[in-house]
Amino acid sequence: MRIEKLDESTRQNLLDDLLKRSPNNYGQYEASVHVILDEVKEKGDEAVFTYTKKFDGADVNAGNILVTEEEVKEAYDAVDDSLIEIIRKSLKNIESYHAKQMQYSWFDSKPDGTLLGQKVTALARVGVYVPGGKAVYPSSVLMNIMPAKVAGVDEIVMATPPGKDGKVNPTTLVAAKEAGATAVYKVGGAQAIAALAYGTESIPKVDKIVGPGNIYVALAKKAVYGHVSIDSIAGPSEILVLADETANPRYVAADLLSQAEHDELASAILVTTSEELARKVSAQVDAFVKELSRGEIIQKSLDNYGHILVADTLEDAIAAANEIASEHLEIVTKDPYQVMMKIRNAGAIFIGEYSSEPLGDYFAGPNHVLPTNGTAKFFSPLSVDDFLKKSSIIAYSKEALEAVHLDIEKFAEAEQLTAHANSIKVRFEKEEQ
Amino acid sequence: MRIEKLDESTRQNLLDDLLKRSPNNYGQYEASVHVILDEVKEKGDEAVFTYTKKFDGADVNAGNILVTEEEVKEAYDAVDDSLIEIIRKSLKNIESYHAKQMQYSWFDSKPDGTLLGQKVTALARVGVYVPGGKAVYPSSVLMNIMPAKVAGVDEIVMATPPGKDGKVNPTTLVAAKEAGATAVYKVGGAQAIAALAYGTESIPKVDKIVGPGNIYVALAKKAVYGHVSIDSIAGPSEILVLADETANPRYVAADLLSQAEHDELASAILVTTSEELARKVSAQVDAFVKELSRGEIIQKSLDNYGHILVADTLEDAIAAANEIASEHLEIVTKDPYQVMMKIRNAGAIFIGEYSSEPLGDYFAGPNHVLPTNGTAKFFSPLSVDDFLKKSSIIAYSKEALEAVHLDIEKFAEAEQLTAHANSIKVRFEKEEQ
Repeated sequence: MRIEKLDESTRQNLLDDLLKRSPNNYGQYEASVHVILDEVKEKGDEAVFTYTKKFDGADVNAGNILVTEEEVKEAYDAVDDSLIEIIRKSLKNIESYHAKQMQYSWFDSKPDGTLLGQKVTALARVGVYVPGGKAVYPSSVLMNIMPAKVAGVDEIVMATPPGKDGKVNPTTLVAAKEAGATAVYKVGGAQAIAALAYGTESIPKVDKIVGPGNIYVALAKKAVYGHVSIDSIAGPSEILVLADETANPRYVAADLLSQAEHDELASAILVTTSEELARKVSAQVDAFVKELSRGEIIQKSLDNYGHILVADTLEDAIAAANEIASEHLEIVTKDPYQVMMKIRNAGAIFIGEYSSEPLGDYFAGPNHVLPTNGTAKFFSPLSVDDFLKKSSIIAYSKEALEAVHLDIEKFAEAEQLTAHANSIKVRFEKEEQ
Repeated sequence: MRIEKLDESTRQNLLDDLLKRSPNNYGQYEASVHVILDEVKEKGDEAVFTYTKKFDGADVNAGNILVTEEEVKEAYDAVDDSLIEIIRKSLKNIESYHAKQMQYSWFDSKPDGTLLGQKVTALARVGVYVPGGKAVYPSSVLMNIMPAKVAGVDEIVMATPPGKDGKVNPTTLVAAKEAGATAVYKVGGAQAIAALAYGTESIPKVDKIVGPGNIYVALAKKAVYGHVSIDSIAGPSEILVLADETANPRYVAADLLSQAEHDELASAILVTTSEELARKVSAQVDAFVKELSRGEIIQKSLDNYGHILVADTLEDAIAAANEIASEHLEIVTKDPYQVMMKIRNAGAIFIGEYSSEPLGDYFAGPNHVLPTNGTAKFFSPLSVDDFLKKSSIIAYSKEALEAVHLDIEKFAEAEQLTAHANSIKVRFEKEEQ
C-alpha cells in the first residue's frame, strides 16, 4: 500500500480524488434513469413488470410481485437457525440504540394565553430499498427498517430485486420480517424507486425512500427528491483510521481492508503520526490481500483510493480527518477520547483498538447507513429523526395578540403585505373605531 | 370565491391541481440553471459578476461584492427606528422558541466497557439565500438566520441580489445584522446558489444552503443537493382554514387573503362543516379583495387555487386537511385542541380565532419557513435540527468484543464479506490458536 507524506498538496489531491466518486458525477446515466421514472409514472405496473423482466430476468405480475406469507415461511426454512439467532441479537442492540433517538412533542405555555409547541409525528408509509447484485446484505435490511419501526411508521414497505426465479433472497426476507417490514415487493433499480415515489396499481406510494443502491438507484432517488423525501445519497464506502505508534498494525490493516473489500470505488485511508506504523501496516495489508477471498476487489480499491498518510503532528492528522469527513473513522491513539473531542466531521467514530469497524456494521446498535463522500460535514447517520416530522403549534389568546398586534401590523406593512396586516387588524377594529 | 362540496372527487382534483405548482414540474428551466451552475463552478467570480450584471443590472466586483461595515451603517440610518425595535422583539421570540429545539450529544455506557453515543455538532458554515424581486422580506432573513445561530454555526453567510445601484435593500441588511449574519454578499439567483455550493474567489463554499427563492433558485438548490445540503424546496405559499360554525367569517376571510396575496400560485382553502360560514366567508372575501392594495394578485390566486369546501362532517374535513398537508393550517372550531390531536400533516398549526397566520409569519417565534405542496407529509419546518449533524460513537472493550466476536464473524461471513470477518478474527486469533 502506498505511503505518502501528509501535507497541504497531498491532502488537496486526495480530497479532489475522493470527490470524483460522487454520484453527482454520473450525469451520463441521468437520461436513462429519467426514461424509467417517466415510464413507471405513466404506465405503472406494466412498466415495472417490463423492466423487471429486462433487468432482472424475472417474470413478475400483479399476482406475484408481493412476497407471500408462504414465501416468508420457505425463507425461514432455508436460513440457518444460528444466523437467525444472530440477527435477533443484533436487532435488539439496534432497537435499543435507536430508541434513545426518539423525539417527543413539546409545548410551552404562559398565563397570558400563549401556547407554542412542536408536534412530532411519524411518517405514515416509507419505502426501504434493498439492493441485490454482487452480494446479499441482510444487515442493511435491519439498519434501514429498525429506525422506521422505532419512530412508529405505520407501513414499512421494502423493495428488492428478485432473482431470475422470481424469488427474493431468503436471508434478506428473514431479515425484513424480523426487523418489521410490513410488505416486500419484488422490484429493484430505478423502477423500484419510481414505483415507491409515484405508486402503481400494485405498489403503494410512500412518503420517504431510504436504502443504498447502485448509481441508477442513487440518481432515481435524487430525481424524486421533493416529490417524496429520501435519505442521503449513498456513495462508495470509506474508512479512515487515525492512529499513532500505540496502534496494532495487524488490526489497523485488517480494518482498512474490511472497507476496501466493498467495491473498487471504496476508500481505505490510514493517517498516522508514526512512520513505523505506516510501514508495518503497508506490509500487513499486502500479506492480508493474498489471503482474503475478495483480494482482487481489495487490490483495485487500494490502488484507486487507498492511502497511508504520515502526518507531522497529531493535530495535522486530526485536521485531515475533519477535512476528509470519512464515513467511518477509527481512532486508535494513546488517548482516543481526547482525539474524539476534536473530531467535527465523521459518520461514525470508533474508539480504541477493540472497536473494529465491522462491529458497527453488524452488531453494536448505531446505524451503519452513514454519510459518505465528505457529506458527514452536513449529513447524519440514518436515524429515528429520518422517520419523524414536526409541525409547529401556535395559539394566542385575544389578550396576547392584542398586546402585540400593532407590532405585527407594522412589520407586515414594512413588507408591503397589506393583506397580512389586515388579518391582524380586523380582529381589533371595533376597539379602535 | 367559489364554494364546492367536499367529496372524494373534489378532493382528488384539488390535490392534483395543487401539485401542478410543484417546482418538480418546471423541468424546462433546468437546462438554463445547469448552464449557470457550470459557469460559476468553472469560472468562479468572473461568472458571478457577469450574471449579476445581466440579471440584476448591477456592477459588482471582488472589491464590492461583500457588504461593508459602512454600508451596514448606512442601512441602519435608512431604516425606521421603530421597525428595528419590532425586529428585535420578534428576534427575541424566534430565539427563545428555537432554543427549545436544541439537541445535545449523549452517551450510554456499561460496566463491561461498551460506550455508545451520538455526538451533535453544528455545521461549520451555512449560506442563507434571501430573495429580492417583487417585495422585500426582512422577516425571512430573521427566520433563516436565527436557527443557524442558535445551533452554533460558526459562519452564517447571506446572499441576496443587489439593486441596479449595487446596494442591498437596507431593511434586509439591518435584519441580517440583527439576526447574526457574519457576511452578506451581493449576488442572487442560480448564480448565488452556485457560488455558495462551489465557492468562488470572493465567496466561500458552505455546507448547507437555506432560504426561499424563485424557480431558478429552487432548481439550482435541487441540483447542488448532495454536494452540499439544502433545506426543503420551497413552493408557493398555502393556507388551509378548518372551521366550523363558531368561526368569525370576517377573520377567516382576512386570513385566507393573507396567503393569497403572496403570488398568483399561492393557495387559500377553507374547509368547513358550515354552509352558512362558507357563504359568509365568500362574500367577505369579495369585499376585502376590492379594498386591499394587492387585490389583483389576490384575485388571480383565488381564481387559480382558492377553494371553499363544505364537508359533511368534521371528520371528513380533518381527513381532507391531512391529505392536503397544508403549509399553514388554522383550526377555528369549538374545540380546536381536539382537532389538533387528529392532525397528522401540516407545516404550522394555528389554534383558535386569535391565532391568525401572520402572527406566525412575523412574531410568535416558530419558524415561518415551512414545508409546502403536500411535503408536510414528510418534511418539517426549518429548525435548529437543520444546522446540526450527528456522528455515532462506538467504543467496545476487549472483553465486550470478545463476548460477541463469533456472532459478528458469522454475520459477516453470511454476507460473504470475509475481510469484515477477518478484522474481528485477528483480534482474538492468539487465544484461539
